[in-house]
Amino acid sequence: MIVAMQERASEKQIQSVIERLVELGFEVHRSTGKLQTVLGAVGARIDFDIRDIEVLDGVKEVHRISSPYKLVARSFRAEGTVVRLRNGVSIGGNDVVVIAGPCSVESREQLFTIAEIVSKSGARMLRGGAFKPRTSPYSFQGLGEEGLKLLKEAGEKFGLLVITEVMEISQIPLMEPYVDVYQVGARNMQNFNLLRELGKIRKPVMLKRGIAATIEEMLLSAEYIMAGGNYEVMLCERGIRTFETYTRNTLDISAIPIVHKLSHLPITADPSHGTGRRDKVSPMARAAVAAGADAVIVEVHHQPDKALSDGAQSLYPEQFSKLMDELRMIAPAVGRKIA
Amino acid sequence: MIVAMQERASEKQIQSVIERLVELGFEVHRSTGKLQTVLGAVGARIDFDIRDIEVLDGVKEVHRISSPYKLVARSFRAEGTVVRLRNGVSIGGNDVVVIAGPCSVESREQLFTIAEIVSKSGARMLRGGAFKPRTSPYSFQGLGEEGLKLLKEAGEKFGLLVITEVMEISQIPLMEPYVDVYQVGARNMQNFNLLRELGKIRKPVMLKRGIAATIEEMLLSAEYIMAGGNYEVMLCERGIRTFETYTRNTLDISAIPIVHKLSHLPITADPSHGTGRRDKVSPMARAAVAAGADAVIVEVHHQPDKALSDGAQSLYPEQFSKLMDELRMIAPAVGRKIA
Amino acid sequence: MIVAMQERASEKQIQSVIERLVELGFEVHRSTGKLQTVLGAVGARIDFDIRDIEVLDGVKEVHRISSPYKLVARSFRAEGTVVRLRNGVSIGGNDVVVIAGPCSVESREQLFTIAEIVSKSGARMLRGGAFKPRTSPYSFQGLGEEGLKLLKEAGEKFGLLVITEVMEISQIPLMEPYVDVYQVGARNMQNFNLLRELGKIRKPVMLKRGIAATIEEMLLSAEYIMAGGNYEVMLCERGIRTFETYTRNTLDISAIPIVHKLSHLPITADPSHGTGRRDKVSPMARAAVAAGADAVIVEVHHQPDKALSDGAQSLYPEQFSKLMDELRMIAPAVGRKIA
Amino acid sequence: MIVAMQERASEKQIQSVIERLVELGFEVHRSTGKLQTVLGAVGARIDFDIRDIEVLDGVKEVHRISSPYKLVARSFRAEGTVVRLRNGVSIGGNDVVVIAGPCSVESREQLFTIAEIVSKSGARMLRGGAFKPRTSPYSFQGLGEEGLKLLKEAGEKFGLLVITEVMEISQIPLMEPYVDVYQVGARNMQNFNLLRELGKIRKPVMLKRGIAATIEEMLLSAEYIMAGGNYEVMLCERGIRTFETYTRNTLDISAIPIVHKLSHLPITADPSHGTGRRDKVSPMARAAVAAGADAVIVEVHHQPDKALSDGAQSLYPEQFSKLMDELRMIAPAVGRKIA
Repeated sequence: MIVAMQERASEKQIQSVIERLVELGFEVHRSTGKLQTVLGAVGARIDFDIRDIEVLDGVKEVHRISSPYKLVARSFRAEGTVVRLRNGVSIGGNDVVVIAGPCSVESREQLFTIAEIVSKSGARMLRGGAFKPRTSPYSFQGLGEEGLKLLKEAGEKFGLLVITEVMEISQIPLMEPYVDVYQVGARNMQNFNLLRELGKIRKPVMLKRGIAATIEEMLLSAEYIMAGGNYEVMLCERGIRTFETYTRNTLDISAIPIVHKLSHLPITADPSHGTGRRDKVSPMARAAVAAGADAVIVEVHHQPDKALSDGAQSLYPEQFSKLMDELRMIAPAVGRKIA
Repeated sequence: MIVAMQERASEKQIQSVIERLVELGFEVHRSTGKLQTVLGAVGARIDFDIRDIEVLDGVKEVHRISSPYKLVARSFRAEGTVVRLRNGVSIGGNDVVVIAGPCSVESREQLFTIAEIVSKSGARMLRGGAFKPRTSPYSFQGLGEEGLKLLKEAGEKFGLLVITEVMEISQIPLMEPYVDVYQVGARNMQNFNLLRELGKIRKPVMLKRGIAATIEEMLLSAEYIMAGGNYEVMLCERGIRTFETYTRNTLDISAIPIVHKLSHLPITADPSHGTGRRDKVSPMARAAVAAGADAVIVEVHHQPDKALSDGAQSLYPEQFSKLMDELRMIAPAVGRKIA
Repeated sequence: MIVAMQERASEKQIQSVIERLVELGFEVHRSTGKLQTVLGAVGARIDFDIRDIEVLDGVKEVHRISSPYKLVARSFRAEGTVVRLRNGVSIGGNDVVVIAGPCSVESREQLFTIAEIVSKSGARMLRGGAFKPRTSPYSFQGLGEEGLKLLKEAGEKFGLLVITEVMEISQIPLMEPYVDVYQVGARNMQNFNLLRELGKIRKPVMLKRGIAATIEEMLLSAEYIMAGGNYEVMLCERGIRTFETYTRNTLDISAIPIVHKLSHLPITADPSHGTGRRDKVSPMARAAVAAGADAVIVEVHHQPDKALSDGAQSLYPEQFSKLMDELRMIAPAVGRKIA
Repeated sequence: MIVAMQERASEKQIQSVIERLVELGFEVHRSTGKLQTVLGAVGARIDFDIRDIEVLDGVKEVHRISSPYKLVARSFRAEGTVVRLRNGVSIGGNDVVVIAGPCSVESREQLFTIAEIVSKSGARMLRGGAFKPRTSPYSFQGLGEEGLKLLKEAGEKFGLLVITEVMEISQIPLMEPYVDVYQVGARNMQNFNLLRELGKIRKPVMLKRGIAATIEEMLLSAEYIMAGGNYEVMLCERGIRTFETYTRNTLDISAIPIVHKLSHLPITADPSHGTGRRDKVSPMARAAVAAGADAVIVEVHHQPDKALSDGAQSLYPEQFSKLMDELRMIAPAVGRKIA
């Protein structure tokens, strides 16, 4: 940690800051320049709140030097994490994996129809919500465990792995027999109790970025899971909230190369939630793969007009098929192929 | 709902949109102008997703006219809600209530010292976290039920009501004997399962605005609670995330008059979390009262340097006392007084 | 324009709004529903400020239906605008054009070295600043007209067109002999006097999006230029300001398909300013082309360490050459080729 | 400047960074810890771009320690700047000054009517736009020099000083005979050529914060003016762009105490532009004074319904009069009085 004192800080103020740092267990190096004094403090606990020093008299600014995370840092596993799943599917390796399916599981017929479509076009994993958190208390709230069973059945029938969202600790064991990957939604990115429990299991977790979360905060949330011993974590960029209102969110494509630099964890992109509009999903899915995403997750529905949720952002089957063709052309430009 | 067709929309496209609306249960009025056709659709379900119409061919834009909420709307209770608590404390009436206390309950001695200080200066309610969600997995996580007991004891001793944060459904009954008001934190503003359960109880709830939540979204979350039959809800502005980095968040003071216009629910301001820096807390608390806040909630600590969490944003006792004096001068300018 | 009255609006309030609308020249259609009255108002002047109606008593909300722009709308020229330049270079057609060069023109040697490099790798247009607006008053401010001359010479020698930024009305005639395209920087996107003057000339203009500008505001600024009779306009996405601090700006890739839907004007992407970091430029350039950009503009420097401005976001020659190869692989996925 | 190397940075990388720093004129202190090496670099030019070091191999992060500004820093004039104007009006001292008037000067009758109203209620300075930049090319663009003359006449008649917006260098001498304070609008906050020219004159300048500008950027823009020798500068918070759409902008009240801490310059608040809605202006003006603003600037119109611009955010005369009474009650809470 570096503590820059104000230019006119008094010797008394400087001594007082040093004493406080020593009291907190830091080793302090003082460097006195013509204009100002700078203190280097070594030995910060990882959870140290630098504002505790910022507010002391005479302090100008404080910079943390060590990362607030360890296990998710690229330096922890420089070669990168490859999350290995069933059926020869891996995320984070040479293949770019496409995950597809409806927003919500609505019925057996709906799910099986869509699973067949996406499987034929080349998706390797099936998505679909069984428990649906909705902004309005008056909306469809999901099929629950019945939805989980349908997901597993459809996955088996069409050779697809299964990913679905876990929203509460109590759902973790309930879901265990049905899913290959637990998804943590954007609204739960900082539900630390849930993250801690997911750290105790040994199944992969896909953690979505909150709409107001910085990339560093997403990494800190992943650290919660890894700190529990579950190292099979992948991240997902799904759009952040900005002043632009045309799209529901702004999909931050640059998060993809940034995560690859800061962390060893794979990064997925969700252009369906990231834009909220069907006609923007394919361009953004292409952009994500071109920027180096390890996987993309998209919503597909055979009758989007009749979908019980998020129909407006679901691709028609023929749009999905066309998108798969485009992604197959783009992946080699980044030295990869579609799984 | 108003559907504006594109200027060159074909008759076929227009008919197709009308059919779709009728199929969805709307009554449709068509208005054909020189340049474009506009459709008025009456009878929307409250949870209707307008994007389902936005993506149809030939549609330019769609506007929802009816509010997506009912019970929280000002029109539902034009005279305004006054949340009546014990000890003659009411929020939303003529009095402006000051809530104060430490970020976390750390020990009996710490809590009792602070409770005495804030009570003497004129606070009417004691705040303090017993369960602490933290960004880092390596930080202090709260005293749990022991903290709740201390809050109740301190409240009784110093004549203060008690408010503390509930983070999980399982904590609701656990907290019941100890608290006067349940607080829902910013990160849980859209934890709809939790909100639904809080709708079933009959104790007041203070709902904090999420850092990326619009005012409308905060109102929709309050609607979840009221829809369950719990009408004792108050809102809390605690800062939103913007591009400005000097403060941790940007306290949106304008949310105070806006909530008063759109809703009958009382609105509180939290300048401690809203700024994250002690030296900005008093100016923003004054601003909140001047803008019409029904209550303010501030963090106070007798030894902020040694606080286990958020010490940097906790006021010293003498700062709090001075702030109370200032608020007493400001409240009459908006026709109110400090409780 | 649609005016939705509040649910409990009085007849007197409704009549008063109708009268005001008629007074303003609107034709008004009234539609009275069970819950509320909605007024349709036809005949708005394009510059009408809907807030004038929003603040009237009894009004709940007002929606503009007609676009605030005309000439830039897709409907004005449904087939799309192709800006045709010298040397067979066109922007907006089948070719994706790459524009490259240094941030600032620093010297003849520097510019010619870089122009040769980018020309050999396949760029068709040379960029470079002659007048440099800088955040700090103590920074290098550009070579001025000498820089313009060097740009023209280098362009001629290496078969490149020239684009450079115009910052003041007085620079328009000065630049005329030297440039193929005038660039309007992000900070001048709403310098309406400058835009009006650029509307009077007959040379293409590339208008960059302001860091806090919505896409609609960018289109309105383009309307200023077109309203003067200059129809050769192209837009440029160069990053918006968000809460994320890792990158200097967040390049809004989704603006590319959105502009293509709303407008007939070509859209360029600037990943150098959009990210501010060299190692993010290539991934974002690839993403932009994959999303359908008509051109990309990137900064290249043979000695970025010694660049007088923005060296940190300039590609090394070999990075640029590799990027060109990648773009050549990606363009066919969107049915295009690199010019 | 502090350069933190990556944890696994090689000795070669470290040496290479040190050499580069020395080459750039820095004096370098190396501090090698158990985990990582940190370099302290002294002697940065004020315009040094830290990204030039950030992108070097092996570098983790770089922090500037010295401020990028000097003259505007609080340390330059610790006692604070008081801008002394005619008629005993001072901004930055014990008095809080209220500036009021119409958005645009529309006619003699309009301006004189409003000037009389605001003068009687206690305003000390008259605002009003003569040159009006508008988002749409089809809107009213101001009276020009005729407007300036009217401002001066009205000011003289009713004992008010005059402030109006300067938008181009050529307007500086034109305005000189008419104005007491030059206002730089939000869109021109980074029009550095204009700022440089305003640094050469010897009349006060009020610099408004851009809607996407950080507080530090606003200070850097003020530095441009002061660097030219004009020390009579005051700042103005007028709302920033956020994701909240209910208000046109989010007035960042916390900027007031922050500017007071970082700088010696006075700070004004503009709640009219900061909210864009008449019914939010008074609460936010009160909040600004309670937070410590040195002045407030508000739009007032005797017939807002008929205003040629921004009528929706203009106060009615009786609202303004009531606001003045409220401000007179609030100012003593911060140890001040309304001028």
